[in-house]
Amino acid sequence: MGPKTHMSASRRAVVLLSGGMDSATCLWRAVANGHAPVALSVDYGQRHAREIRSARDLAAACGAPLHELSVRLPWLAVSSLVDSRKRLPDVPLAKIGRGGVPSTYVPARNTVLLSLAASLAESVGAKRIFFGANALDYSGYPDCRPAFTRAFERALDLGTREGGIKIEAPLLRLDKAQIVRLAVRLGVPLSLTWSCYKGGAVPCGRCDSCKLRAKGFAQAGVPDPAR
Amino acid sequence: MGPKTHMSASRRAVVLLSGGMDSATCLWRAVANGHAPVALSVDYGQRHAREIRSARDLAAACGAPLHELSVRLPWLAVSSLVDSRKRLPDVPLAKIGRGGVPSTYVPARNTVLLSLAASLAESVGAKRIFFGANALDYSGYPDCRPAFTRAFERALDLGTREGGIKIEAPLLRLDKAQIVRLAVRLGVPLSLTWSCYKGGAVPCGRCDSCKLRAKGFAQAGVPDPAR
Repeated sequence: MGPKTHMSASRRAVVLLSGGMDSATCLWRAVANGHAPVALSVDYGQRHAREIRSARDLAAACGAPLHELSVRLPWLAVSSLVDSRKRLPDVPLAKIGRGGVPSTYVPARNTVLLSLAASLAESVGAKRIFFGANALDYSGYPDCRPAFTRAFERALDLGTREGGIKIEAPLLRLDKAQIVRLAVRLGVPLSLTWSCYKGGAVPCGRCDSCKLRAKGFAQAGVPDPAR
Repeated sequence: MGPKTHMSASRRAVVLLSGGMDSATCLWRAVANGHAPVALSVDYGQRHAREIRSARDLAAACGAPLHELSVRLPWLAVSSLVDSRKRLPDVPLAKIGRGGVPSTYVPARNTVLLSLAASLAESVGAKRIFFGANALDYSGYPDCRPAFTRAFERALDLGTREGGIKIEAPLLRLDKAQIVRLAVRLGVPLSLTWSCYKGGAVPCGRCDSCKLRAKGFAQAGVPDPAR
């Protein structure tokens, strides 16, 4: 029986871990804040399922237990992030997040992910969910907005046994350069993270996620160890 | 290409269909209200997975397409509704829902179910989710309270592309006798519904669900066609 069995439930935190840079930074943030994280990674049919391998590597590097779920929702094929026959948007960096909700939006994805995280949190007595949403350098998804996170937290207060499960979104108001700097400061093994929506052998460099990542590293003046 | 492909998206409604009496009544209610329902049934490891067979029969009887999902969350074994080695509560009818949240509570279950329904609704352009929650003759689950439903609806307004997805819980303030009468009036084939938590060959008659159902039929003065 390791030390983890003795920790108080209140130290536990569920971390939604996609395998990307933002959620990895959340995982290390949770540890730095004194939490004992339990990571949750969900295969919902995303074309870059390769990110789940990153999630596994990151959880192992952090020493956090990882729950891997497969939640296949056939209707999500409406999204270009799920149906790999669809074209991924390739827009100039300055236009990302400014042309309405893009085709990569996955219907109610973060609502589903947060609800799964809430179920895990309530089951293990965790009072925190770490969620890597970002509302500054992002694609313009409605379920990354601060008001959504607060409203969901309110629903959890009413819809769980004891309430009081807080959603921590520490990256919500950071830009990508700030996230890179924070990740470096926290010691996140960024070489293990995966961002590209395409999920090929190497990052495509053209999708929103690749462009935002490249911008973050460039502006932070840090080389991307995953390139 | 049947008539369903021509219907307007606004007529579509997602119905969470467990296979019990309440959700079946919701399905027929949706039809009576002029909606074209899409049913959603989720196997989350409930010990009475037999109810999913009922959901299938009910959807077929109603002529509604059914999505069946398997969403296995290993941590749900904390609930006696999931771990069949646990004892189900057997309390007097008058005490049901009055002794705190019972062991059959499944952590954040309705949050997860509603989020899956929301994802389906957004994907097919439905603006209604029918949800058979009941806050009168029920076991005292927090995620059946009216305030929870409203808060979740608010989260959906903020966390989906267009917002405006409404959660209809037409049974929320009905007692079981009123639900039986409504079901009879709507022509719900109650013989196809399944309520018993135990999920054996015949209803156990001792769990909350069996007792509430029996009370409803007795007070409505209607014989239970499933007995």
